[in-house]
Amino acid sequence: MTDPKLSSVQTRMFQAKAQRKLSFEQIGKELGCNEVYAASIFYGQAKPTEAEIKRLCEILNIPTSHLVEEMGEHFYPSRGGLMPMPPTDPTLYRFIEMIQVFGYPLKAIIHEKFGDGIMSAIDFKADVEKVEDPKGDRVKITLDGKFLPYKKW
Amino acid sequence: MTDPKLSSVQTRMFQAKAQRKLSFEQIGKELGCNEVYAASIFYGQAKPTEAEIKRLCEILNIPTSHLVEEMGEHFYPSRGGLMPMPPTDPTLYRFIEMIQVFGYPLKAIIHEKFGDGIMSAIDFKADVEKVEDPKGDRVKITLDGKFLPYKKW
Amino acid sequence: MTDPKLSSVQTRMFQAKAQRKLSFEQIGKELGCNEVYAASIFYGQAKPTEAEIKRLCEILNIPTSHLVEEMGEHFYPSRGGLMPMPPTDPTLYRFIEMIQVFGYPLKAIIHEKFGDGIMSAIDFKADVEKVEDPKGDRVKITLDGKFLPYKKW
Amino acid sequence: MTDPKLSSVQTRMFQAKAQRKLSFEQIGKELGCNEVYAASIFYGQAKPTEAEIKRLCEILNIPTSHLVEEMGEHFYPSRGGLMPMPPTDPTLYRFIEMIQVFGYPLKAIIHEKFGDGIMSAIDFKADVEKVEDPKGDRVKITLDGKFLPYKKW
Amino acid sequence: MTDPKLSSVQTRMFQAKAQRKLSFEQIGKELGCNEVYAASIFYGQAKPTEAEIKRLCEILNIPTSHLVEEMGEHFYPSRGGLMPMPPTDPTLYRFIEMIQVFGYPLKAIIHEKFGDGIMSAIDFKADVEKVEDPKGDRVKITLDGKFLPYKKW
Amino acid sequence: MTDPKLSSVQTRMFQAKAQRKLSFEQIGKELGCNEVYAASIFYGQAKPTEAEIKRLCEILNIPTSHLVEEMGEHFYPSRGGLMPMPPTDPTLYRFIEMIQVFGYPLKAIIHEKFGDGIMSAIDFKADVEKVEDPKGDRVKITLDGKFLPYKKW
Amino acid sequence: MTDPKLSSVQTRMFQAKAQRKLSFEQIGKELGCNEVYAASIFYGQAKPTEAEIKRLCEILNIPTSHLVEEMGEHFYPSRGGLMPMPPTDPTLYRFIEMIQVFGYPLKAIIHEKFGDGIMSAIDFKADVEKVEDPKGDRVKITLDGKFLPYKKW
Amino acid sequence: MTDPKLSSVQTRMFQAKAQRKLSFEQIGKELGCNEVYAASIFYGQAKPTEAEIKRLCEILNIPTSHLVEEMGEHFYPSRGGLMPMPPTDPTLYRFIEMIQVFGYPLKAIIHEKFGDGIMSAIDFKADVEKVEDPKGDRVKITLDGKFLPYKKW
Amino acid sequence: MTDPKLSSVQTRMFQAKAQRKLSFEQIGKELGCNEVYAASIFYGQAKPTEAEIKRLCEILNIPTSHLVEEMGEHFYPSRGGLMPMPPTDPTLYRFIEMIQVFGYPLKAIIHEKFGDGIMSAIDFKADVEKVEDPKGDRVKITLDGKFLPYKKW
Amino acid sequence: MTDPKLSSVQTRMFQAKAQRKLSFEQIGKELGCNEVYAASIFYGQAKPTEAEIKRLCEILNIPTSHLVEEMGEHFYPSRGGLMPMPPTDPTLYRFIEMIQVFGYPLKAIIHEKFGDGIMSAIDFKADVEKVEDPKGDRVKITLDGKFLPYKKW
Repeated sequence: MTDPKLSSVQTRMFQAKAQRKLSFEQIGKELGCNEVYAASIFYGQAKPTEAEIKRLCEILNIPTSHLVEEMGEHFYPSRGGLMPMPPTDPTLYRFIEMIQVFGYPLKAIIHEKFGDGIMSAIDFKADVEKVEDPKGDRVKITLDGKFLPYKKW
Repeated sequence: MTDPKLSSVQTRMFQAKAQRKLSFEQIGKELGCNEVYAASIFYGQAKPTEAEIKRLCEILNIPTSHLVEEMGEHFYPSRGGLMPMPPTDPTLYRFIEMIQVFGYPLKAIIHEKFGDGIMSAIDFKADVEKVEDPKGDRVKITLDGKFLPYKKW
Repeated sequence: MTDPKLSSVQTRMFQAKAQRKLSFEQIGKELGCNEVYAASIFYGQAKPTEAEIKRLCEILNIPTSHLVEEMGEHFYPSRGGLMPMPPTDPTLYRFIEMIQVFGYPLKAIIHEKFGDGIMSAIDFKADVEKVEDPKGDRVKITLDGKFLPYKKW
Repeated sequence: MTDPKLSSVQTRMFQAKAQRKLSFEQIGKELGCNEVYAASIFYGQAKPTEAEIKRLCEILNIPTSHLVEEMGEHFYPSRGGLMPMPPTDPTLYRFIEMIQVFGYPLKAIIHEKFGDGIMSAIDFKADVEKVEDPKGDRVKITLDGKFLPYKKW
Repeated sequence: MTDPKLSSVQTRMFQAKAQRKLSFEQIGKELGCNEVYAASIFYGQAKPTEAEIKRLCEILNIPTSHLVEEMGEHFYPSRGGLMPMPPTDPTLYRFIEMIQVFGYPLKAIIHEKFGDGIMSAIDFKADVEKVEDPKGDRVKITLDGKFLPYKKW
Repeated sequence: MTDPKLSSVQTRMFQAKAQRKLSFEQIGKELGCNEVYAASIFYGQAKPTEAEIKRLCEILNIPTSHLVEEMGEHFYPSRGGLMPMPPTDPTLYRFIEMIQVFGYPLKAIIHEKFGDGIMSAIDFKADVEKVEDPKGDRVKITLDGKFLPYKKW
Repeated sequence: MTDPKLSSVQTRMFQAKAQRKLSFEQIGKELGCNEVYAASIFYGQAKPTEAEIKRLCEILNIPTSHLVEEMGEHFYPSRGGLMPMPPTDPTLYRFIEMIQVFGYPLKAIIHEKFGDGIMSAIDFKADVEKVEDPKGDRVKITLDGKFLPYKKW
Repeated sequence: MTDPKLSSVQTRMFQAKAQRKLSFEQIGKELGCNEVYAASIFYGQAKPTEAEIKRLCEILNIPTSHLVEEMGEHFYPSRGGLMPMPPTDPTLYRFIEMIQVFGYPLKAIIHEKFGDGIMSAIDFKADVEKVEDPKGDRVKITLDGKFLPYKKW
Repeated sequence: MTDPKLSSVQTRMFQAKAQRKLSFEQIGKELGCNEVYAASIFYGQAKPTEAEIKRLCEILNIPTSHLVEEMGEHFYPSRGGLMPMPPTDPTLYRFIEMIQVFGYPLKAIIHEKFGDGIMSAIDFKADVEKVEDPKGDRVKITLDGKFLPYKKW
Repeated sequence: MTDPKLSSVQTRMFQAKAQRKLSFEQIGKELGCNEVYAASIFYGQAKPTEAEIKRLCEILNIPTSHLVEEMGEHFYPSRGGLMPMPPTDPTLYRFIEMIQVFGYPLKAIIHEKFGDGIMSAIDFKADVEKVEDPKGDRVKITLDGKFLPYKKW
């Protein structure tokens, strides 16, 4: 999956992952984090710690110098920008469709349960689970974000 | 919450809901459905059954003729279109931000767990839960969709 | 200033404010809030409390029923959408220009001072001050938002 | 932070800064300017003087010829263009969200305090301050621009 | 020329001007201002003084109450937005074409003559002159704006 | 000022101009044309004659073969496209703002003085003048284009 | 053909034309102009003379006061804006497709035959002819515009 | 005229054409086709036959292998995409302006003469003629396309 | 299904269809045409004959005067424009997704089977069939258009 | 047909296909799949199995290592993105035009035959057939997708 514009280090990380037939689940376990979070590092959407960079280079068998230069202490991700909006890829598009169709209903329920505010996308976790089902397995995504109330001043 | 362009019947439904101080949770219980689904009917994003229309009119104390004329048997929603893309409202925007930042990681995990295909936005359920937390309550959204594999032909 | 699309109640609020020659500074004092916050209520960008609605109606000499119906307990703002992006109005455009030119430098400084994360636009205050200066008075805007660090999971 | 499209000289400046573990605060002090202004030079958003170029090359240990060729006397920045609009990066996006939500209120207050005109983005200063707070540290940004009144002719 | 979306008061002003066969040159003379400025008031792009409103109502034979309500003391224009960008009207489009083709050359000359900065569109005057020419009369537009230098801080 | 996408020959022309510390005013004098026109040749917005190419190469000390190959007899500019629309650079943006705000008033005055038609951007001249002023020097731009009346057929 | 947004007078003109079963060919003959030009008046794309307005009202049996008020002496068309770009209507889209596919070839031929310049869309005529052909009749459109050479200054 | 993005073979074709000082008129004669059609092959907008490729290579003195590899039997043009829409180049833009202003009138006349349907852009010819005129030479473009009626089914 | 912007006559046609519980299949049979074609008339995408208008009015029990006035002899559809592009409605979006994903493969096969040209969308028929299937019924859409070869000239 | 942006491996596949004068029909037969599906693999729109990769390399005489590296086990297509939307190529555009014109009618018929839901673009097949016809051969495209009903929850 090398389609979005990746830096040369990111491309190398994906290639090493493919050659070693590693899943993000395995990489996440090694790094001590969720597999979605692990994938976010590969896509340049999360800032790895120095320890994570070191461990990643061991797992992928890549010299640390490359990762440190691109993703080291000084690096703070410029997030997003991986896909056009709306995305043309059907797997990605369905996420957007869910928001276009059910976004206002979700907003309404959040306000009824919590009041005026938002669900944080920063103090945030996401998880993907496979639920087996004889009628067809199901993807269960959990999005878990802190509620942030608007303040008066 | 009357901001997205609503039809006159939808506006009336929201006004009746406000006057009777009903929550979508209460309305969902009366209709025998999830509160997100109930809100979807109000926003014209789901097709109510005849029984649901009848029950809704009782709950809201609105004559059935209006709802039947706009949302009756012949009605099939033209979904989406409630918000600009990206939406300017912060509560809605955060959903899009989650996809822009974590969309490719989520796609990667889905493919690793299920293979080539998508998570359905049609054979789909969404749920909002309030998780109390001393550091600040959390919004937990569960998205549950059937996995649909691409087929060769 | 009636240019952005306002609801009929909002238009009435602006007309009453003009007739009574009230400034947002005066209105903010009456409501016990900052003048920027007071203006935000008029533009439908903040949710007034019941007490604020009551006080507003007294100040503006408007019957409360109108404001309660549109901005009452059930109302949660659909924020933004008041201007095209980028805005054509020069006063508004300069704000955007500041971000287009100095946005990346500001992001860099925030990361150097706080680490990986964002400045909240929800747990947020804004203030406008007039600084007299013989070479030409200056507008001093203070933006004050909580730092929210990205979390690992 | 090398994400926006930078010229080869700018990339080199960022790399030297990272290797020497210099902050913009340190660089600003050396150049005798605010850290935001210093960062603006790195992002090609400000025109450095000859003295600043010389000093920068000393600090970063880069030959002056490169900077003079790209940023010398003949150079006048083509400002902006570093980010898509609206930006996808959450740290940058929040700045835009502040304007989308509070832009009209800010415009209203400026007019009430100063009359018809704009806050200059040219005769302009920006400053970032870290305000420690037990509930979470706060980012305080000060924007300070000359008021420019519209003239009749 | 009633094509851009005008308020009902503006429409009335244009109708009165047409019925009385007044030119903006005549109106400008009466108001003591340039004809371009006079037209700007009609298009809602300039803030008239109270004296100008009074005089305008006399010239156009319109009751002052209407103009005062829409363009009085409390009114600050939300400028721009009269045309799509780029405009489809050929007379308007040519102005944009001049900038698209000669904009960078003009920017280069301004920097060579003045240094780093901009030509103000606020402290600004525009004038249209008809220059008779046997090969075809010529339109001579003069744009006169204060140079604003970028400041270091 | 090398920001807009330039061909390798154009880049070389700008570099030679910078090294020799030539202004467009000087180059224009050598070529026997206005400085804005001279700059237009550098930006690929005007077609130089063979004599101009020859003279340019002498002034800039560049072999003629390069310019002839890219800008010779066969070359007809594909004009525009140097900037996004609207441009993000403040010096360029102000030109667009002048049109967005005063474009309809200018159109109105042109029609009142000349009738139905346009001001040509082809049979056209532009000039920049520096007007010294103790309150701040002023940029005076003169746009001079033939009036072209619409014809009936 | 009432789809593009027409003013109430234009709608009335189209209705009268339909009721009287008049073609633009007939109307053009009555007005002494080409049928394309006649249609342009109906679509608000050309400025009718006073004599044309008078004659039009006779042909369509409409009181002149309406046309004079909207299209009289003071009226100068804001041209274009009748269709989205690109247009969705297939008859209109094909015109755009012709330009997208053959536009650069046409530009090349114009330059080879005339030099650097444009084909005027102002000093311009268009004509539609039906050419009968046993293999299928053909539409022959002739576009005839003055060549305008770019000038040096 | 090498501005639109051309493949390396196309660039070579244009360079050979320039070096040999060949016009499209001459090339068309050699190929036995209209000059507009000949130019279309250069811009990748038409599929040359094997005989045309051979003849082209003789005329331009280019080895056939290059053209065959890029434009051979297997090649079917992906047409359009040479210009932004609307194009910024004035010569190209005027074509679009003609459609924006006179497109609906042309559509109306086509329907009146032919009924419901379109003018084909596939079974289509275009021709450019220079008409000398003492008031200024004129460009006469003829567009000739088959009428295709909509069918009922 | 009244979501896309319909004229008042079209709205009335849909209401009559709903009240009489008529399907497009039944209406198509009455009109002697395919059900997709019948629906196209309701959506203003096809031009009905006078006989069809008469028959439609009988079926729907609507006075013919309304339909004749809007869809009579003089009426030629301005097609398209019913949906945003891309459409937000999932049923419509899937059609677009099919083209985005399989459009180039389909183009390739058409060229391999037919040569250089297009599949007409004018000399065109579409048909929808329900294919029962124990694993889930299938929608089978047949698109049948004349091949139109590009012509040399 | 190498116009859409292809990876170096895809370009090599198309070149090998052209050199060996293979059609997608032949390739599909070898791979045991429909020719449209075979083309989809070339355009990166389908995930080939390991067996298909092996067989493809034999047919095209390309070393498997290249295909395995880009399209191997770890590869999941990022679909779409091959064309701008709307596409400028006439063959592709006609597909979009069919949806813009007949999309709502098709949606209406699907709902009447199947109820509320969509036609899947995932559990989906497409087929192209050449139907010979003395009046002009016809392209017959069959789209066959599973109906997916919306579910209540």
